[in-house]
Amino acid sequence: MGVDPGLTRCGLGVVEASSGRKVGLVACGVAATPAGMDLDQRLLRIAAQIGDWLDQYQPAALAVERVFAQHNQMTITGTAQVAGLAMVEAARRGIEVALHTPTEVKAAVTGTGGADKAQVGRMVARLLQLSEVPRPADAADALALAICHAWRPATLSPLGAAATPAQKAWLEAERAARRGGRKKVTV
Amino acid sequence: MGVDPGLTRCGLGVVEASSGRKVGLVACGVAATPAGMDLDQRLLRIAAQIGDWLDQYQPAALAVERVFAQHNQMTITGTAQVAGLAMVEAARRGIEVALHTPTEVKAAVTGTGGADKAQVGRMVARLLQLSEVPRPADAADALALAICHAWRPATLSPLGAAATPAQKAWLEAERAARRGGRKKVTV
Repeated sequence: MGVDPGLTRCGLGVVEASSGRKVGLVACGVAATPAGMDLDQRLLRIAAQIGDWLDQYQPAALAVERVFAQHNQMTITGTAQVAGLAMVEAARRGIEVALHTPTEVKAAVTGTGGADKAQVGRMVARLLQLSEVPRPADAADALALAICHAWRPATLSPLGAAATPAQKAWLEAERAARRGGRKKVTV
Repeated sequence: MGVDPGLTRCGLGVVEASSGRKVGLVACGVAATPAGMDLDQRLLRIAAQIGDWLDQYQPAALAVERVFAQHNQMTITGTAQVAGLAMVEAARRGIEVALHTPTEVKAAVTGTGGADKAQVGRMVARLLQLSEVPRPADAADALALAICHAWRPATLSPLGAAATPAQKAWLEAERAARRGGRKKVTV
């Protein structure tokens, strides 16, 4: 299950991954809260929805987008808070939590870390054999996170000859994130 | 109850406030997590401790320090996440949540929004009639938040002649925070 954290719209996506590179859509949607609602009530509502999805779909892992403090200054605190809530809801249920950077997700799904949102959406639709790109974009991003995690090259050697171009791009993005990790603020 | 959010040390403080300006210490401490622990487990542990304190002390309200995205770039995401968790733990229990800026807290406790940490600690000790400043500083800051909220001039007219100098400073700090609020990113 992937979570694209956000206070106004939090993307949620569940995929099933079989052996090889096959993935299938299980569910996608958003947990939305109105901007006029008190912050504690917004956060409570989102946490409850994420918890409901975790209970309903019982994913093997929850993949959450890694939040960088230097990005999106205007929404960073809300985004970070929703990411934190998602992690706690998973941890409370004993579900593995993984963080993936936007670059890792793009690289995993499209083969290039520099892909734009539309490319990611189209590839998500293609990989899941959907006739349309999932909407809103937050839901598609959550599915991309879930696919990224399902395809993580954990069992591959970093130089594994079996890696596909997308997996190689993923590994490079991950290494770049690790190199930069000590200078950046991440969740 | 006040919460000074932090991932390494989260300050917790409970006071009881009677009529007038009397306040008494009920409890203070920190929820600490080791830096080497997985983030989801750290957040889960802090959320559980805040929840335990809320269950044990059943405060009338939870006062959380308002997190500004432009401050403390290196720790902002962790701080924001812990603040969000505290809010959700309170909201889940039907406990009122209030956010106060550091300036409001300093003004409420010392009479000036520009007070330093040591001044705040000394005033907290004096107000609570403690022989020493509570340690670590995070615990003293949490107590200051709780006192600030107990003393919020909610029932005073903004120009109320009955306001003490500290309450006037509080009101000014609150108004300043409101004026700046639309430009700043707050939780």
